[in-house]
This record gives sequence, C-alpha cells and structure tokens, in this order.
Amino acid sequence: MTRTVYLNGDYLPETEAKVSIFDRGFLMADGVYEVTSVLGGKLIDFAGHCARLRRSLAELDMASPCTDAELLAIHRELVSVNDVTDGMVYLQVTRGNPGDRDFAYPPAETKPTLVLFTQNKPGLADSPSAKTGLKVISVPDVRWGRRDIKTVQLLYPSMAKMMAKAAHVDDAWFVEDGMVTEGTSNNAYIVKGNKIITRALSNDILHGITRAAVLRFAREAQMEVEERNFTIEEAQRADEAFITSASAFVTPVVEIDGAPVGAGTAGKVAARLREIYLEEMHKAAI
Amino acid sequence: MTRTVYLNGDYLPETEAKVSIFDRGFLMADGVYEVTSVLGGKLIDFAGHCARLRRSLAELDMASPCTDAELLAIHRELVSVNDVTDGMVYLQVTRGNPGDRDFAYPPAETKPTLVLFTQNKPGLADSPSAKTGLKVISVPDVRWGRRDIKTVQLLYPSMAKMMAKAAHVDDAWFVEDGMVTEGTSNNAYIVKGNKIITRALSNDILHGITRAAVLRFAREAQMEVEERNFTIEEAQRADEAFITSASAFVTPVVEIDGAPVGAGTAGKVAARLREIYLEEMHKAAI
Repeated sequence: MTRTVYLNGDYLPETEAKVSIFDRGFLMADGVYEVTSVLGGKLIDFAGHCARLRRSLAELDMASPCTDAELLAIHRELVSVNDVTDGMVYLQVTRGNPGDRDFAYPPAETKPTLVLFTQNKPGLADSPSAKTGLKVISVPDVRWGRRDIKTVQLLYPSMAKMMAKAAHVDDAWFVEDGMVTEGTSNNAYIVKGNKIITRALSNDILHGITRAAVLRFAREAQMEVEERNFTIEEAQRADEAFITSASAFVTPVVEIDGAPVGAGTAGKVAARLREIYLEEMHKAAI
Repeated sequence: MTRTVYLNGDYLPETEAKVSIFDRGFLMADGVYEVTSVLGGKLIDFAGHCARLRRSLAELDMASPCTDAELLAIHRELVSVNDVTDGMVYLQVTRGNPGDRDFAYPPAETKPTLVLFTQNKPGLADSPSAKTGLKVISVPDVRWGRRDIKTVQLLYPSMAKMMAKAAHVDDAWFVEDGMVTEGTSNNAYIVKGNKIITRALSNDILHGITRAAVLRFAREAQMEVEERNFTIEEAQRADEAFITSASAFVTPVVEIDGAPVGAGTAGKVAARLREIYLEEMHKAAI
C-alpha cells in the first residue's frame, strides 16, 4: 500500500510529496519536528507533543502553520487513511521556501512548510527489547548547545547510531564533560535502590514528553526521583538503567560500553515504569 | 528571468526543482554544501571547493554523486544558461531519499541527491563593505563540534545573523571558551603590525578555501602569519580585523561589540590582501 502523507494542505501519495530545493528545511536545517506514537489506532500524549512543538517554534521565532485542533485532525486523518494500528506520526515544520538562499530569516509572511507522515510499527508496545534490554556505547556529545529545541539537525545522532551499529550494539549515550547527557533519540536514566536518577532539564537535553510523564508516574508510585548528572561509571555500577522516548516508551539498558548494568538483565523498576506508562497512556490516548 | 537549476541529472526551472520529503537533507540535515564564486563569468578556486567537498563527503561516509569533471560541466552550464557574470554557484549533496525516515544511514546503493543553483550578484567584487568595513558583535558559539565538515546544519549561524541584525550590525563572530572561533559564514583574522593572526585549523572551524589562498598569498608577500587563538578584547585592540569567505573574499571588520578596531576604518593590510587575492584569483579562474 502506498502511504498517504500530508504536505501544506494536501493529502498526497508518498512518492508525490516534494518540497522546493529552496525550502529552509532542506538548505539550512531550519525546521523542527515531533513524533507521536499510535497505539490501538489512538494518539499517545498528543497534547504533550503539541506543547513542545509550540515551544520549539517560539524559541526559533518560527511561525505556526496551524492550530493544535487542525494538527489533531491531520494526525487522525493520516492514521485512518493509512490504517495505522500501532506506529508513529511524524510531523515537521520548517521556515518555508523564500525562493532563494539567505542566512537571514525570510519575511514573516513566508508560509511555513508543514509535513506529516505515518510509520506502521505493528506490535510497537511489545518490542522484544523491552524484555531483552538494549546494549549501548558512550560517545562524545558534540551536538549543538540547544538540544532543548527539537530541530532536524540530526546528523550527529545519526552518526552515533552508526557508531553503535559498528560496535554491534543497539544505541549510544552521549557524554559531555564526563557526564551522560542523553541517548541518540531518548532520555537516559539509572536506578539505585528505589531511586530513579536522570539529568535535570536544561538546554543540554531534549525535554522529553515521555520523560515528563514517566517521572510523574514514578513520583505518584512513591518512587524517589533525583534529577542530577551521572557518569558512565556510575551507570555501569547502578542497579538498573533505562531510556525513555515517544516510541520506545520505557526500555531497559543492560550493557554500557561492554559492562553489564546490575545483573545484566532487564530490571524490575524499568519494567514496572513501562507497565504504568503504557497503562496510563492507553487510558488517556485520543 | 526564471533561473535554471540542476537536480539529479536534470536542468529545471527553479520553481519545478523539488526533492522528496523523505530526502535525508530535509529530514536530518544529512547533507554538505559548497559555494563557488563567479567573477567575469568564471569560477573562482573551483579545485579548492571540489577538494573540500570530497573531504566533507569522506568524513560522513557519504557517496559522491559524480566526478569533479562532471561537477565542473554542471557549474559551467548553469553559469552560462543563467547568464551569470558575477555571483555564486551553490552546490549541495545529501545522502538521498531512502523512502522512509530512519536514523541509521540507508543502504550504500541509495543515490545521493545533487542540487546546484546560481545566484546573480552584479558587482560582487566591488561590494561597498570592502571600503566601509563590517561591524560585528560576538555571540556564544553553540554549534556542533565538527565545523570542519561543511554541513547544512546552518540554523545557529542563521540565528546569529538575526542577532546581528537585531543589534544593527552586519555580522557576528562566534566565541567559545573565551576565544574567537570564526564568523557566521567566514573565517576571522586580526592584524598586529605586519602580523596576521587567525585561529589554527581544527574541528572547531571551517577549513576555508579562501583562508588557505589568502594565507598563502600573505606569506608570499612576506607578511608574517601566526595561527593561534585570540580573544574579542585582543581583536578590539588590534590594528585591523577582517574576514575571508568565498563570496566576501577579504573584507575588513571595523567594529566589534561597539568598539572600533584600530582607527575604526578599513585597514591597509586587509585592503592589500583583498587586492592580491582578487588579482591572483582572476588569473586562475576557469
């Protein structure tokens, strides 16, 4: 089946969805994105993704292409026409096509580009990695300094995924000034006793929508949450480690730089948090 | 006149040149570029730009779309059909369109995307700024750590240009750990006596094609060249300051963060280097 995608007001076959070579998303990485998971045909934490999109746009003085209600309608239409039960909806906004290349932003009336497409991922919530856990390596974090803005400047995360592949592991954790920042496309956590430790929000990491929900559920479940930096060495000596993201939910990390974390198997705290997260998100899905 | 642009083997009217929304240049900033100046209908330092393109592609394990000879033919055809006397040829290569979005690189056989277009800039070599000089502000350098690779991750340079605009100046110089790295789209220099001081090459700055030529000509003209870091304060107290880039050639900087550099007017060393550079480049243009 050919996917139907959305581009600037039109629903198109995926092969026909094209943007100008002068689009600032293509020439200057001047764009932001969101990925919303779909479970049972419903959107997970859509409001959270909309709020973060608004923040990204505001931080970059980028115009909004439409209202949240309109975005919701497009998400739902794409999920429906593409028959997505489990999967993702990808959304990207760029500063549009000013008709030529210039570092300076184009006039404010330049129409932003809005692109959405779906990805089918049958059994998304039952990924084997939830049970087996992920192996990661650490790599230096050389990304730009505003990782709190969810831009399409994803070349280095992409390079880091390839470094992980070359090392025969699943993913990479970024390290800056000796401290873990986050994963290539997820937030990073360790568990010591009943305490969940994760880096505090700043410009250094993405303000994960799943992170916010998971920490809320953890606190509600009387787990202790400590937001502070940690090293790879501390992570290797921890009882558990895990990551969160919109599409991986809560997924255990069982090995870091070749060293097992805890017993080297998926931990109980991560499993419990994943269970709570999926349960609550199923209830709240729209 | 509608520009003719080049896209993956075709010469097209600029309004018809479009890439897939799944192109990795659009989704992940997974692309590199070069800008070659045109003076009197001829290409300036084309070999230098080709060599740097090859280096950028190699650093990113990105396939080359064609040979240097083919690139030269496309450059010349575009200059000819668009009747460019003075201006630029912009070239971009991306990792192509794998048909869907994934952080991991697509299979090696995925065809890279190749885009070229011209920009007409009548009187490019006679820009008034060569006489009046530029005013710049300093801004923190929060770009990624591989600025030696000329990628399309240009959002922060673009933001810095807007900061300069808001401060009613012409451009910005990036500062990291207290030291000037470079300008938003150019290399930065100061002059003390007969000595030209500029940051040494590393991953921290672009390996400017114009920089290489200008330093060579400076040495040939018996000027002393010192490649080392400098601060904004040292630059403000210097005799002169200037920038180099493929399209600005050598352009004086007369004010930094509101303080005049030297006499606050375009300096003699910059003027002389610009003269030598343009003379030599005119001779070698192809």
